[in-house]
Amino acid sequence: MSYSAPVDRISFSLKHEAGFDRLYDAIPDLDADLITSILEEAGKFTTEVIAPTNKIGDEEKAHLEAQGVVVPDAFKDAYAQLVENGWPTLSASEKYGGQGLPISLANAVFEMLNSNIAFTLCQMLTSGAVEALEAHASEEQKEKYLHQIISGNWSATMNLTEPQAGSDVGAVKTKAEPQPDGSYKIYGTKIYITYGDHNMTENIIHLVLARTPGAPEGTKGISLFIVPKFFVNDDGSLGERNDVQCIGLEDKLGIHASPTCVMSFGENEGATGWLIGAENTGMAAMFTMMNNARLNVGIQGVGLAEQATQISMSYAADRLQGRAPNADRGDNAPVPISSHPDVRNMLMTMRALTDAARAICYENGVFHDLAHFGGDEKAKAFNELLTPISKAFSTDIANEVAGLGVQIHGGMGFVEETGIAQFARDAKILPIYEGTNGIQAIDLINRKLPLDNGNIVADYLTQIDETITQCAANETLQEMASALKNGLDDLRAATKFMMSHPDKLDRLYGATDYLTLFGLVAGGHYLARGALGTMKTNEMTHKVKTATFYMDRLLPRTKAHLASLLSSKEHLDNEEIFHIVG
Amino acid sequence: MSYSAPVDRISFSLKHEAGFDRLYDAIPDLDADLITSILEEAGKFTTEVIAPTNKIGDEEKAHLEAQGVVVPDAFKDAYAQLVENGWPTLSASEKYGGQGLPISLANAVFEMLNSNIAFTLCQMLTSGAVEALEAHASEEQKEKYLHQIISGNWSATMNLTEPQAGSDVGAVKTKAEPQPDGSYKIYGTKIYITYGDHNMTENIIHLVLARTPGAPEGTKGISLFIVPKFFVNDDGSLGERNDVQCIGLEDKLGIHASPTCVMSFGENEGATGWLIGAENTGMAAMFTMMNNARLNVGIQGVGLAEQATQISMSYAADRLQGRAPNADRGDNAPVPISSHPDVRNMLMTMRALTDAARAICYENGVFHDLAHFGGDEKAKAFNELLTPISKAFSTDIANEVAGLGVQIHGGMGFVEETGIAQFARDAKILPIYEGTNGIQAIDLINRKLPLDNGNIVADYLTQIDETITQCAANETLQEMASALKNGLDDLRAATKFMMSHPDKLDRLYGATDYLTLFGLVAGGHYLARGALGTMKTNEMTHKVKTATFYMDRLLPRTKAHLASLLSSKEHLDNEEIFHIVG
Repeated sequence: MSYSAPVDRISFSLKHEAGFDRLYDAIPDLDADLITSILEEAGKFTTEVIAPTNKIGDEEKAHLEAQGVVVPDAFKDAYAQLVENGWPTLSASEKYGGQGLPISLANAVFEMLNSNIAFTLCQMLTSGAVEALEAHASEEQKEKYLHQIISGNWSATMNLTEPQAGSDVGAVKTKAEPQPDGSYKIYGTKIYITYGDHNMTENIIHLVLARTPGAPEGTKGISLFIVPKFFVNDDGSLGERNDVQCIGLEDKLGIHASPTCVMSFGENEGATGWLIGAENTGMAAMFTMMNNARLNVGIQGVGLAEQATQISMSYAADRLQGRAPNADRGDNAPVPISSHPDVRNMLMTMRALTDAARAICYENGVFHDLAHFGGDEKAKAFNELLTPISKAFSTDIANEVAGLGVQIHGGMGFVEETGIAQFARDAKILPIYEGTNGIQAIDLINRKLPLDNGNIVADYLTQIDETITQCAANETLQEMASALKNGLDDLRAATKFMMSHPDKLDRLYGATDYLTLFGLVAGGHYLARGALGTMKTNEMTHKVKTATFYMDRLLPRTKAHLASLLSSKEHLDNEEIFHIVG
Repeated sequence: MSYSAPVDRISFSLKHEAGFDRLYDAIPDLDADLITSILEEAGKFTTEVIAPTNKIGDEEKAHLEAQGVVVPDAFKDAYAQLVENGWPTLSASEKYGGQGLPISLANAVFEMLNSNIAFTLCQMLTSGAVEALEAHASEEQKEKYLHQIISGNWSATMNLTEPQAGSDVGAVKTKAEPQPDGSYKIYGTKIYITYGDHNMTENIIHLVLARTPGAPEGTKGISLFIVPKFFVNDDGSLGERNDVQCIGLEDKLGIHASPTCVMSFGENEGATGWLIGAENTGMAAMFTMMNNARLNVGIQGVGLAEQATQISMSYAADRLQGRAPNADRGDNAPVPISSHPDVRNMLMTMRALTDAARAICYENGVFHDLAHFGGDEKAKAFNELLTPISKAFSTDIANEVAGLGVQIHGGMGFVEETGIAQFARDAKILPIYEGTNGIQAIDLINRKLPLDNGNIVADYLTQIDETITQCAANETLQEMASALKNGLDDLRAATKFMMSHPDKLDRLYGATDYLTLFGLVAGGHYLARGALGTMKTNEMTHKVKTATFYMDRLLPRTKAHLASLLSSKEHLDNEEIFHIVG
């Protein structure tokens, strides 16, 4: 079993499904040859260097030792090569050593890097911190920290969660006491801090949410601080150790080599931190990080699903068992299990869902770039609309795909040695972190549907109409057009409910069904676009079959989600639900 | 977190959903008070003794040591109590020390014992062997082995799988050479042998599939042998060790304490075995075991889903996070997460799916008993019809339920310490072993639908009609009647396709959708029966809400499965599927 970065699929999806070429107008000096060569290099690097460390990490895990957290040696080596080759710098600001390339390109590379999720998380958290610093830090802070973070010489963390403050970030209790020199002393314990400590970089820059004395309750009283592991001298050299340490690691279901740290700030003299922006504006900075982090988690789902699909396909092609379903009587020759219709359905489901999720995430990135480079406000709103869908739909399908992967492997799937079980374990974190998928659904119906009085979602759906029209005009794709039209009708009915039904609780009860329904139709839309691209260019002709399978067998799920979300809620109080379920 | 055996739910389901009371006619001396007291005692025993060993087993695992396989001490203690209290003897033949009670009662007890799947597997495999021996062994063999196996003093195993012979049992290569004294020498290696060795019983009786010299190819040339770990002397005492040993254990995703053994037969002088029945009739005996084993695996799914549901409900009731969805402005008091609609949907889904699967398995058991004790041929056919559905639907929903359990726990769900992750890991084996769920679907459409020219399935669906009529006659349940009617219409349309569509490949492509659709409608049928029972007796009134939730939010999934299975297959050859997916 092995992963081969799907550079062809990725390039095709960027061009034909995600409309990457629009960026050549928005970014005049964007060089198509450069894009191609970056994708190819990334394919080589991830296939040869990153993916092979995935199983090693699962087995060796991260460990807390006296000197701090130690990751597998293979991770240290891979990280050194990652930095040496400049991969962390792709989309970061040129002013601080980045390459200023589109996020949508970085996304494609990020998908391939996520052939090892546990490894790539370090980079993911770091790039979130880069964005927060770029948007909210002072020029002096940027100069001091950003060059080293962007290069990957230092990593960075996001310190939000505390035992009582998970999904509800506003419940944070960590304290920040102002000091005469303008710094703050930070006291508190954070949990679930990804790569809160490790031995791959010489310094770690923690971004920490805390409350200053007298700050308002809830999210309005939260400030964000820079708390470096080692202080940074004016000449850029490293000074003393700050009063912050990892005091525990979680034993987790998956992503074993990604250290999930309990971080203690200020156990001794107080951890020294520096305020980012003004007091009580921490949530805004946090949202800057989180928005892109949510898309990134969606892309993790795509990367995981892609690898699980490849491995399962190659197993199914090699494993001989049973006779062909339409073999002649007496022909007992065992066939590859990929010949069996049930296995084939599973393989096609894995491929179709993975491709659908990829394209959703990719056009989301393109929208981000059209806004960022071209100042396209509509694109910015589409980016906001698609972010909860990118995150939740992609990570839900990653779990479905990884589960199918285990099933295809049969008894071998349940044995850890095979490696496929790791994907089912790793995938389970994706619908949870960076805002649970339930929270994404609430974000979608409460914050994103109302954007521009509902015109954003309406305009997005109009784009699907256009795809349907184009498919209907093509003889081969007429059935596809009509299947997609059915899905879109369901999505419009659901959207109408979400935007006009008066009862807030009813809407909340339907939120997750709505998000999934949206993702299914959006996915169908992109696969249909891909089919149109294939018809035009004759590239990757098999994409038409993937899209057909999706429309036939997966898109009809919209019917179940629509019926469910339109049904009236159960009016239960808390005692009653406990009585019923518990 | 802890499990409390749901004796009330189980009794309710047996009576009102599964129609257990029919057995009082079929078995004149069946004592209702005895049934009640057995269920209550089993509830106490499993709550206090079995469930608490579940997490211990996951952590301590089984180990292969020089003297053989060692299970956790807690398992040895629990097993001793299991035997002492006579639990293994419930439904076994009275002639050999069993209690001769209905399988449907044993099923209910088995569900509760499956609060620890890894532990209870030993008993499950043993009871399968008991059935095979009862049906196919000679009287002498029965006398020699059955008393000790039924009491639980000895355990038993099923040795089918070899590296090249998984789903395709006919590919078995293990050899059996006849000896002058009527015994056979067995040579070969078997894999995935559950409890192939362990230290809970003083002897282990292996049932082994092998080929005699010159046997026909495939399943027609397979014979079944008794191969005891220790030979049994004529006075019943144990003699020398046989030439069979566990030479390796699999490191698995879940059920860590259930040893999955590589078994070597005849490494030295040859393992001595005794033929069961005639040569080349091994498959028939194997099917005897497997039929009930399939229902048992379904019940494992129910037991796992029940426990995951209970634990998640109790977490959701305790964990405070976020404000109430309709709290007044300014009311920031955190609420139990069970107040949040998304979490509530997940909890209700877990409860409704678990109850639906339970009732399917339970009526299946009742059908078995009506056939066994009452000679009811129609019931026997219903038992055959429902077996693949019991196995596959219950284990699929067990995976869905366990996954939701992890999600409800949020970050805590991904940490092994919490314990909920174990259920997601353990559940993954259930759709794989005892015939993958894909194989169950083939069994359903190819072997079960044609029973009595389609009259069996037709009569089963007529029973659903009757439930619909009864619901429609009750003002409170009219909406439920119409929802169930919609589901049944979908199932009839799908059944018509499966029984009349001429293309075998098309039918095979739709088999899994068909099975799931069947399970969804059957589940709805039983929950509606439960609602009717509640209306009549005023017992467990909340069952009406569970059923309503199921009809509103889960049963509409039939629409997606129907559309999928009616769609035409993709005509792909093996190279093409590899090209598309790989």
